[in-house]
Amino acid sequence: MNDTLNRLAVVLEQRKLASTENSYVASLHAKGLNKILEKVGEECTETLLAAKDCEHSEDKSELIGETADLWFHTLVMLSHLGLGPNDILSELEQRFDLSGLAEKASRQLK
Amino acid sequence: MNDTLNRLAVVLEQRKLASTENSYVASLHAKGLNKILEKVGEECTETLLAAKDCEHSEDKSELIGETADLWFHTLVMLSHLGLGPNDILSELEQRFDLSGLAEKASRQLK
Amino acid sequence: MNDTLNRLAVVLEQRKLASTENSYVASLHAKGLNKILEKVGEECTETLLAAKDCEHSEDKSELIGETADLWFHTLVMLSHLGLGPNDILSELEQRFDLSGLAEKASRQLK
Amino acid sequence: MNDTLNRLAVVLEQRKLASTENSYVASLHAKGLNKILEKVGEECTETLLAAKDCEHSEDKSELIGETADLWFHTLVMLSHLGLGPNDILSELEQRFDLSGLAEKASRQLK
Repeated sequence: MNDTLNRLAVVLEQRKLASTENSYVASLHAKGLNKILEKVGEECTETLLAAKDCEHSEDKSELIGETADLWFHTLVMLSHLGLGPNDILSELEQRFDLSGLAEKASRQLK
Repeated sequence: MNDTLNRLAVVLEQRKLASTENSYVASLHAKGLNKILEKVGEECTETLLAAKDCEHSEDKSELIGETADLWFHTLVMLSHLGLGPNDILSELEQRFDLSGLAEKASRQLK
Repeated sequence: MNDTLNRLAVVLEQRKLASTENSYVASLHAKGLNKILEKVGEECTETLLAAKDCEHSEDKSELIGETADLWFHTLVMLSHLGLGPNDILSELEQRFDLSGLAEKASRQLK
Repeated sequence: MNDTLNRLAVVLEQRKLASTENSYVASLHAKGLNKILEKVGEECTETLLAAKDCEHSEDKSELIGETADLWFHTLVMLSHLGLGPNDILSELEQRFDLSGLAEKASRQLK
């Protein structure tokens, strides 16, 4: 089902067509691929720093926020290049034979 | 539902406990946080380079593979620090009021 | 002699003590290590993107500017942690036996 | 003068022409720009992690080594694209008005 990423992808496709004044996502697309990739790189760095800070603190809210930023900007990148979350999720399914596990489980149910 | 990432997270928690000889994931955990973060940074760089190559090529398989690697290693990072995909997906749900949209849609169905 | 980096390091140490209103370098130090490292990561990403753009363009000014930004922010990072360019240059000298080469060359001249 | 980086650049140009079996630098050039940029990104990540570890340790040798790796691989990148350290050092000279000529001129004014 992968609800969250797919619903977010729908929102991202809508905002891609919005006015650049009203939408951060539209303004990223207008600025082009390099600007989007700069944001992906930036959020990755901030994720690494937040993860390091978890070594000496119990508070993980910063890491959660930065990882959300990283995933969000990779989704904008995918959208800019005509792809979506299911392209990545299918790849992960295949690599880890995740659908196989599901299939096996559904067969056991019969 | 978020099936793929949750099923992958289950696999990752199992492998975390596996022998480091048999499991890449177990060996990453044994090497520690810096090694895991090095891999996140590495896969981010490879994602950026693959995205740039999409500007001059129709083949997007490299980008799909590298983004899958990036998401995969962020999941290992989250697992290492006691978090999982739902922590990030909940954050994205809240930011984009995605559950609100779903709720509205389900209400319209009634 | 390593003039440029050493003279730049002197400027950076002066600005470290300047008012944060007048000096970008002072404001970076005041914001702390994470902010400085975010800038290093950001400039690295911009360097990678500029280098990729050199594959399809003759204009290398963007790459020169971004690499200068990257080196500049690594110097601010070193300064923040009590180090300077000579710590890095000495390491490179040792690894590549550069002083040895110079010595051998000067011996051959005799 | 900028001795170290210039002497290193001479070594790098020599190794660029060496056999890929004997030289790490030659093998990087043979693998192409993406491989070189992957190494730049990798060493940047390792520099960030080593800098974070300096917040909780007195030992700075790791940071010195990783920053040397980062500068080294940016020099290989510059060499691959027909540039050298002086292109970057000149840019920094101009930005910060570091040139000895400027200093001499200001002394003559007194």
